[in-house]
Amino acid sequence: MLKLLLQLDSSRLPSVFDQVVAYDAGADRIMSEGGVTENEVRDLVHGCIFTRGPKDLKNTAIFIGGADMSAGEKLLAAANKAFFGPMRVSTMLDSNGSNTTAVAAVVKITQALGGSVRGRRIVVTAGTGPVGTRAAGLFAKAGADVTITSRKPEDGERVSKEICDRFGGTVHSVPLREASQAAGAIEGNEVLLNAGPAGIMLVPRAAWAGKAKVVVDLNAVPPLGVEGVEVNDDGATREGAIAFGALGIGNFKMKVHKECIARLFSRNDLVLDAETIEDVAKEIMKK
Amino acid sequence: MLKLLLQLDSSRLPSVFDQVVAYDAGADRIMSEGGVTENEVRDLVHGCIFTRGPKDLKNTAIFIGGADMSAGEKLLAAANKAFFGPMRVSTMLDSNGSNTTAVAAVVKITQALGGSVRGRRIVVTAGTGPVGTRAAGLFAKAGADVTITSRKPEDGERVSKEICDRFGGTVHSVPLREASQAAGAIEGNEVLLNAGPAGIMLVPRAAWAGKAKVVVDLNAVPPLGVEGVEVNDDGATREGAIAFGALGIGNFKMKVHKECIARLFSRNDLVLDAETIEDVAKEIMKK
Amino acid sequence: MLKLLLQLDSSRLPSVFDQVVAYDAGADRIMSEGGVTENEVRDLVHGCIFTRGPKDLKNTAIFIGGADMSAGEKLLAAANKAFFGPMRVSTMLDSNGSNTTAVAAVVKITQALGGSVRGRRIVVTAGTGPVGTRAAGLFAKAGADVTITSRKPEDGERVSKEICDRFGGTVHSVPLREASQAAGAIEGNEVLLNAGPAGIMLVPRAAWAGKAKVVVDLNAVPPLGVEGVEVNDDGATREGAIAFGALGIGNFKMKVHKECIARLFSRNDLVLDAETIEDVAKEIMKK
Repeated sequence: MLKLLLQLDSSRLPSVFDQVVAYDAGADRIMSEGGVTENEVRDLVHGCIFTRGPKDLKNTAIFIGGADMSAGEKLLAAANKAFFGPMRVSTMLDSNGSNTTAVAAVVKITQALGGSVRGRRIVVTAGTGPVGTRAAGLFAKAGADVTITSRKPEDGERVSKEICDRFGGTVHSVPLREASQAAGAIEGNEVLLNAGPAGIMLVPRAAWAGKAKVVVDLNAVPPLGVEGVEVNDDGATREGAIAFGALGIGNFKMKVHKECIARLFSRNDLVLDAETIEDVAKEIMKK
Repeated sequence: MLKLLLQLDSSRLPSVFDQVVAYDAGADRIMSEGGVTENEVRDLVHGCIFTRGPKDLKNTAIFIGGADMSAGEKLLAAANKAFFGPMRVSTMLDSNGSNTTAVAAVVKITQALGGSVRGRRIVVTAGTGPVGTRAAGLFAKAGADVTITSRKPEDGERVSKEICDRFGGTVHSVPLREASQAAGAIEGNEVLLNAGPAGIMLVPRAAWAGKAKVVVDLNAVPPLGVEGVEVNDDGATREGAIAFGALGIGNFKMKVHKECIARLFSRNDLVLDAETIEDVAKEIMKK
Repeated sequence: MLKLLLQLDSSRLPSVFDQVVAYDAGADRIMSEGGVTENEVRDLVHGCIFTRGPKDLKNTAIFIGGADMSAGEKLLAAANKAFFGPMRVSTMLDSNGSNTTAVAAVVKITQALGGSVRGRRIVVTAGTGPVGTRAAGLFAKAGADVTITSRKPEDGERVSKEICDRFGGTVHSVPLREASQAAGAIEGNEVLLNAGPAGIMLVPRAAWAGKAKVVVDLNAVPPLGVEGVEVNDDGATREGAIAFGALGIGNFKMKVHKECIARLFSRNDLVLDAETIEDVAKEIMKK
């Protein structure tokens, strides 16, 4: 029986990234739906649960993506609401790689800090997007003192509240509009995680060199986001800090992402979101 | 050579149900097109008939679906109009499972009545949708005295006329807005077929118990549509009636649906609509 | 590793023709995106280049299609702009079969003329569409004296200028609204290539009989576009001319199209557009 993955994407054009990874992780066929809204989920989910017998439901699964994290969360909630009793399939939420990339960075950083982030000061630059919010949330949940930066102060405040509502813990926000303000915005933090957009250098070398203990850049498109970190860094020493570049994190993220897709088809009742994906990443890290 | 199924769906998001069934029935790849309108069909059909040689055309087929039955009928007509001479592929119309579900219910009910519905009084509650109209039409064509219920009287009148225009025979309509009106609306009928929406109980037990000879509910999502019928019923005796629930009918519907998909790829000139799908169902029933 | 083809289509509904050919040419899976605009390309392309390692990038490729040739050109430019360094995949532009059909006709005509079109007078009727403009451009580039016809004179002038800007050479335009004007519009040309719409006879027999040396009709849907040419003609003699019908050209076009798709997966840096596709066609012709 074919392993069928239903891709529910909140963006109009279903993510190509998510499709390629799903195929490479063993999905036999992908059914892609784009621009999906909450109200449309039930009928699509019924197509998953009413077509195959209870024993075969594990061969169908749902992957939720798209550029908008909160839209993705609504789709996940709607999907799980459409299930009843044993009539369900496994689901995974990873809007714009938010959960898998954030988890990969968080697990790598935690390991670099000796196994715990409790009480550590961590700043996530450009941290209001899908990846930044998930990383900030997981750090906050684990007891770190987290700050996110945002171009607009009001966005930062709103998002930091949303993160605390979802994950618990403490998240501050500070404004950071351009590279020249980076030094001030990130001062006093031991860990720098840049979640800024592709092709934009947001943190100059002078802003972090000699201060940060761990520095991570998730931008893979030159110019890179943190000056002085190389895209392939995977624990390299840069200016005295342990550094990770986008591909260094990305390689681990891909392992986590693929392992999660594979697990979706191992049973019919998994819900893979930030915390459960972090559990998967920790298991992989131990091997 | 791969068996390619072109899914033309009148709804914006192509049906997941139809895709899962098509894969399980042997389609190798599905090309899904959503929100398809009449005027767009010709170019899409040309993509089917001008790409493979005449001997290989049977490896491509067209499945037409979507929430709107009359939109589906227009797509089917447009597809068949775009063919010429031997340049054609097989087509199947099954908007929202209308034909396969209706046929499965009609064939089961006919068998339960001893092989014929001629002269029998049959009511289809919430009968203005895709499944209800197809079932009413097949019953009318076979000589039954058919009534459909609808929330709005004008809808019921319009739809019953459309059914007679398409299938011949006699179809009446009566209003039925909520469960409390069900007893009156279905009185005097020997057969009750509920085609109402998922998760809504439309016919209380008292409305049919001790009166109906055959009672069928197509709603698979609790609360079920006909009180007293179980979702897995497949000829069980309930209140003295022969009862079929949504999964009882659904199991047979799936066999019919899959057999139809498989047959699409056996030749390049099949047109599977209500009557021809009923022929397939009767063949399966005899085995 | 699966061969994945990303179909970027400028039209809302991704081309079925292109999907069928791609599957038959060896693509394992197709990721179809419809109604794609320039600004959406980068993220989709990143999904191709950031998911597989450098050595595996040749297993992913991009096919650009759609009804609008200039939209397709913009998508191709945007895709190639999103690549950087070795992070790239092979691309092919063939909006509405423009390049492969035009190339097939151009190569067949060139062969029929003895191997060169230099200095020859060639008219492309209804030549402002994707196929007509590509054929006119390739002829102009090879030194022919090219004329395109169009229903509206202003369209013809604009398009002939665009062709010269893209391909170099000389392209004239003359108006041709209906069949009765065909004789005058094509007078003095040795080669007639009809690129008019399906199902419309644009050039009566009397307009070309005894005058043209090579006559080609690309309309495969009756009534055919050039009276007196048969759809299966592949070098037949008609009224003293060497004639090619839509299927005669189409068979060769399909070979070219499939060979191009296959080559996309042979390396990760091919850009298949008019000239490079013509090179592929000439290689096939020599075999």
